[in-house]
Amino acid sequence: MKIDSFYSNNIKNALRNDPPGEWMPTIPENCIKLSSGFLAPDLVPSKEIKESVAQLLDEEQDLPLHYVGTPKIDQLKQQIQTRLIERGMDVEEDELLVTAGACQAIDLIARILIDEQTVVAVEAPTYMEALEIFRNYTNQFISIPMDEYGMQTEVLEHRLVERKEQGLPLPKLIYTIPTFHNPTGTTLSMERRKHLLELASTFDFLVLEDDAYGELYFDKSLATLNAMDQENRVLYVGSLSKVVAPGLRIGWVKATNEIISTLYWFKKDLDHPFAQAIMATYLENHPFGSRLDIIRASYKKRANTILSALETYLSSSVSWYIPDGGYFVWVKIDGVDTGELLQQALKEGVSFLPGKYFFLQEEDGKEWLRLSFSYHNLDELKQGVKKLAQVLEKF
Amino acid sequence: MKIDSFYSNNIKNALRNDPPGEWMPTIPENCIKLSSGFLAPDLVPSKEIKESVAQLLDEEQDLPLHYVGTPKIDQLKQQIQTRLIERGMDVEEDELLVTAGACQAIDLIARILIDEQTVVAVEAPTYMEALEIFRNYTNQFISIPMDEYGMQTEVLEHRLVERKEQGLPLPKLIYTIPTFHNPTGTTLSMERRKHLLELASTFDFLVLEDDAYGELYFDKSLATLNAMDQENRVLYVGSLSKVVAPGLRIGWVKATNEIISTLYWFKKDLDHPFAQAIMATYLENHPFGSRLDIIRASYKKRANTILSALETYLSSSVSWYIPDGGYFVWVKIDGVDTGELLQQALKEGVSFLPGKYFFLQEEDGKEWLRLSFSYHNLDELKQGVKKLAQVLEKF
Repeated sequence: MKIDSFYSNNIKNALRNDPPGEWMPTIPENCIKLSSGFLAPDLVPSKEIKESVAQLLDEEQDLPLHYVGTPKIDQLKQQIQTRLIERGMDVEEDELLVTAGACQAIDLIARILIDEQTVVAVEAPTYMEALEIFRNYTNQFISIPMDEYGMQTEVLEHRLVERKEQGLPLPKLIYTIPTFHNPTGTTLSMERRKHLLELASTFDFLVLEDDAYGELYFDKSLATLNAMDQENRVLYVGSLSKVVAPGLRIGWVKATNEIISTLYWFKKDLDHPFAQAIMATYLENHPFGSRLDIIRASYKKRANTILSALETYLSSSVSWYIPDGGYFVWVKIDGVDTGELLQQALKEGVSFLPGKYFFLQEEDGKEWLRLSFSYHNLDELKQGVKKLAQVLEKF
Repeated sequence: MKIDSFYSNNIKNALRNDPPGEWMPTIPENCIKLSSGFLAPDLVPSKEIKESVAQLLDEEQDLPLHYVGTPKIDQLKQQIQTRLIERGMDVEEDELLVTAGACQAIDLIARILIDEQTVVAVEAPTYMEALEIFRNYTNQFISIPMDEYGMQTEVLEHRLVERKEQGLPLPKLIYTIPTFHNPTGTTLSMERRKHLLELASTFDFLVLEDDAYGELYFDKSLATLNAMDQENRVLYVGSLSKVVAPGLRIGWVKATNEIISTLYWFKKDLDHPFAQAIMATYLENHPFGSRLDIIRASYKKRANTILSALETYLSSSVSWYIPDGGYFVWVKIDGVDTGELLQQALKEGVSFLPGKYFFLQEEDGKEWLRLSFSYHNLDELKQGVKKLAQVLEKF
């Protein structure tokens, strides 16, 4: 029996690509992992989550362990709703869907919007896991280059005009991480935010705003695209993975009631009542504000440390964008293939992610690499950059 | 802006149907819920799960709260693998995918196999949530009637022969719950199991075996279709929702390595490390065997109680299948519309699920209803049936 003949057309399209996650290099355990986009171990509130679980099960016994039933599910939704309102976004309860992390949110959105022939615009570089998800649905992409002020919306406009003139299909959706971008750490300027929304209106596309890092500013952040959107074109995706803990898998979509109820069509049976109830209990005891103060202060220190180590140890052929928040520094090394550099770096005990993984055209990321300052402590960050400089010197 | 023009073809097909879950009647809180297919509150190991979470987080701190990383994820897979081997199924590690409950497993399988024109064969009646999932992908169904020995495979054969003669497309997939079926409680006889596998081979289709209740026998159970399958045609779905707790959302697919790696394409970013680590820790402390002894003994008692209450209180116009395991008794009331009966029953403080929800053609379930004996204690079960008899008497 040949299984191939049984596969749906959708999956046949997906199978054109490399298996998901294959790109991820194997990082030896004893490395200083500047590749790791994880919360620092001491910032993961494992003790508080343990206490929240105990409290939840003491108070509600079996309730949160059934399919549905605990009022905590609604409570979490309200907590997220309140937080979004505090951040300047209008949101009613039926405009919010709690998902299993931002990835489920992106996947659900892809599912309801993307056909095989749908054109999707993405930033170059962009979050590789989102690329993997979109590639399960289409192979029609437009890549929009970035600079230190985020996506170059003037290039986007140029491409749109060009495609229109040539009679080519326009994108239906643009995926963007406007604030503390992964991997570049950049923030889309206010001017470009406005421009992007104007383009969405003129060329009639939707915007998927991935705001996973939006809360993690060092000093300030800009209004979200969703808050600025007058036409309900922005589907907003958020997450607690970078703020509390990714393992609980709590994310959400904020969009019109109509879109939310359509997403629910596919989401319904994939809910996670226990994880949601744990998060609700945790947030009851540790409100967003207090948690974010801790996280922001810590990441600001880490960012300053890695940036000053870059200044100290790395040569003039190396440049980088200065992040205003988030987890990452995006580094360019002229004339160096960072994929090859990684092999040497791993031998010396330091890791990073080569830029190629973040581009549809791997070649475009050849001289770039992503350093993450989220995971290690200040001393390790410094040591990591020092090791990297040594590797580069000998390279 | 009209959002409809943005929807993918797939979702447009799904939107033909009623919204998911709409069918579920609202059951007042103070009812005896013979509608509830939940574990009894006293059988949900909330104390043990609390202890497992505490142990896990004490031992591993932040590890299980990241995206990946705890060895517990592999441990859970091995625990499930070992259990399946004990139950007579050959299974290698790469033939198993842990999912967020059986529903994610069914959804992933539907995703890789079903196109808009794919014909899917289902039992009539069948699990309504599975129907909802399949309907998101296709509206081409064949319904195969059941009797007290499960799906009538001779009718299936007849339909297949007929369709072949008429040049109609044959089903690519048949969805079956061969053991302690939801909603009928029946078990597919050994003879029919063999017949079904022969038909799969002759007519070249795959079998999705949903074994969510398979462990819950009172005295004995039959070999799974998967264990009997010589041609790798049976995709086996299991779950711990009926055995430990549904809120943790732990299910799995066992299939060939090739199918498992294809499912992983869509599953990858939807993993739940913390829930899996909790379940692994729980099973470490409370192995399957000991847990199942408790559950089986309790459900056997409950089943006997509800069956003897049916004998005692219900009139001769009412008949039912005697289950050998699982959660349910499937009851027929001649000449009564059970949808209308439910409205009266709710007023009297007892609920059940009308048969119509379990059929593609609702009319076929008009005289049937599903009683669940999983949730209430023995006295409540007896009282529930007594109330139901009173309602029926006045109806």
